Amino acid sequence: MRFVKGHGTGNDFVILPDADGELDLSPALVRALCHRGTGIGADGVLRVVLTAAEPAGAAALTAGGGERAAARWFMDYRNADGSIAEMCGNGIRVFARYLVDAGYAAPGRLVIATRAGLRAVEVPADGDVTVEMGPPELAAGPVPVTVAGREFAAVPVSMGNPHAVCFADDLDPAGLARLDLRAPAYPAAAFPEGVNVEVVVPAPDGVAMRVFERGVGETASCGTGACAVAVAWATRNDVGPPARVAVDLPGGRLTVGWRESTVLLSGPAVLVSDGVLRPDWLRAAGGPVPVAPGGERRPSAVGAG
Amino acid sequence: MRFVKGHGTGNDFVILPDADGELDLSPALVRALCHRGTGIGADGVLRVVLTAAEPAGAAALTAGGGERAAARWFMDYRNADGSIAEMCGNGIRVFARYLVDAGYAAPGRLVIATRAGLRAVEVPADGDVTVEMGPPELAAGPVPVTVAGREFAAVPVSMGNPHAVCFADDLDPAGLARLDLRAPAYPAAAFPEGVNVEVVVPAPDGVAMRVFERGVGETASCGTGACAVAVAWATRNDVGPPARVAVDLPGGRLTVGWRESTVLLSGPAVLVSDGVLRPDWLRAAGGPVPVAPGGERRPSAVGAG
Repeated sequence: MRFVKGHGTGNDFVILPDADGELDLSPALVRALCHRGTGIGADGVLRVVLTAAEPAGAAALTAGGGERAAARWFMDYRNADGSIAEMCGNGIRVFARYLVDAGYAAPGRLVIATRAGLRAVEVPADGDVTVEMGPPELAAGPVPVTVAGREFAAVPVSMGNPHAVCFADDLDPAGLARLDLRAPAYPAAAFPEGVNVEVVVPAPDGVAMRVFERGVGETASCGTGACAVAVAWATRNDVGPPARVAVDLPGGRLTVGWRESTVLLSGPAVLVSDGVLRPDWLRAAGGPVPVAPGGERRPSAVGAG
Repeated sequence: MRFVKGHGTGNDFVILPDADGELDLSPALVRALCHRGTGIGADGVLRVVLTAAEPAGAAALTAGGGERAAARWFMDYRNADGSIAEMCGNGIRVFARYLVDAGYAAPGRLVIATRAGLRAVEVPADGDVTVEMGPPELAAGPVPVTVAGREFAAVPVSMGNPHAVCFADDLDPAGLARLDLRAPAYPAAAFPEGVNVEVVVPAPDGVAMRVFERGVGETASCGTGACAVAVAWATRNDVGPPARVAVDLPGGRLTVGWRESTVLLSGPAVLVSDGVLRPDWLRAAGGPVPVAPGGERRPSAVGAG
């Protein structure tokens, strides 16, 4: 079983080429692959499958209008815990870089099918990859959020998922780095499905942020979080749309462009290594069993088709 | 640049084949390789080099007596932070499994050169790998150690590195799992170079433990820690040497055999995947630059020889 490891500002992914949709990717196998220590280790899995070969691909296309025909590839994204996620801003940028690198798509503008519908991605031959994340929703606020023993009047922003953006104007990036981000608190009624919490400080080129992702804890980077922060920052300073904001995260810099109709997320998308899983490891992980050592993988009956 | 990823009870390693000692393995490259998120991700690097090709190999052999001739391979172990470590109980077991798997050694008893001298390892064709860790040293004690707000009369044991073993007989493995192991405290005078702290509870087949490694924090497994725990447990119960103790760690089970002259550490040593680093990634990480894309690595002048 071949894989490629990649990352976008420290959000890392196991990319599994599976054009014909033959791979039985069980939640247990996803957890085993993503486990740091006993697996490859990653924040999530990006299965690369032809839209026509993926049952969920048809649903993605219904939202697509005139771009349907272009959405040749479907991004099957899984979280490290084995659950399904609709979209991932850093993941789709790495996914698009892989498509171009593997020769599955030409550099330029790609349309990729996801469980959240179609997404347009700009992939130059080299350098940063940009994805259209769709429009933000600014909800009524502020909402009181407590981080590191301090109460903030947080700005609620949805990028498809909920965010609470906390501005700490009195801190600099060094002060931000020292905050204890382990246990943010907020009124459950304001965010019944939980919320991602961002703390933001001014930085020389824009803003610096850290993020606490719901169900995960602090992470090196969060694409939707960077978008929410940029939109909240621009709104607060009355400078957009259109606006362009450089957002420094622990894992690197993302640039967010806020237009009337959408938010553009740009940043590095890096392929680290190419690999092959050992058949013995795969067998122990309950994965697809090869026909013979070194031979072709045989998909299980459940996953085939 | 080729690599293999492996682990022993969740302690994971990047294995770098470098028989002729041509690889310039700088601390920065080690950190980049081990970084979870932007690299391969691991607790350490195991460079596989012929003893005759490694300057540190000659020193390892001086301790070797009649076994010198057998110590064909040198384990160049590096911590994830880029520093050098003399030995690693889980690392050398994975190292030995790799030697046999790669055809560099036949299954059976191997002698491996390390910065701590020669180490004998038993590698069957399949299954658990056993390493002779050398004799333990029981120091005068007990020493007061505070973990999770509780003071223990810890047993000090050295396995080449210092350990403080804390017995929590009133807890079961589930209670152990709930302890907050983030900030153990101990008198600095008792352990001037710091100490690894283990908390131990009775388990159905022996003991269960968690470990806080100095300079790192809690880890899934620690080979010397398991040895120290088994020796302290057997001494306390007056059942050895010889004694054989099953030690359950968060990352899996290790079995420790305490003999008069040495401690044997046994457990799984798993190879997960084979990989090749992308030349662009390696260039950005400051690693050896390939002559041409896909071509052979050219070692730098510093590392050659």
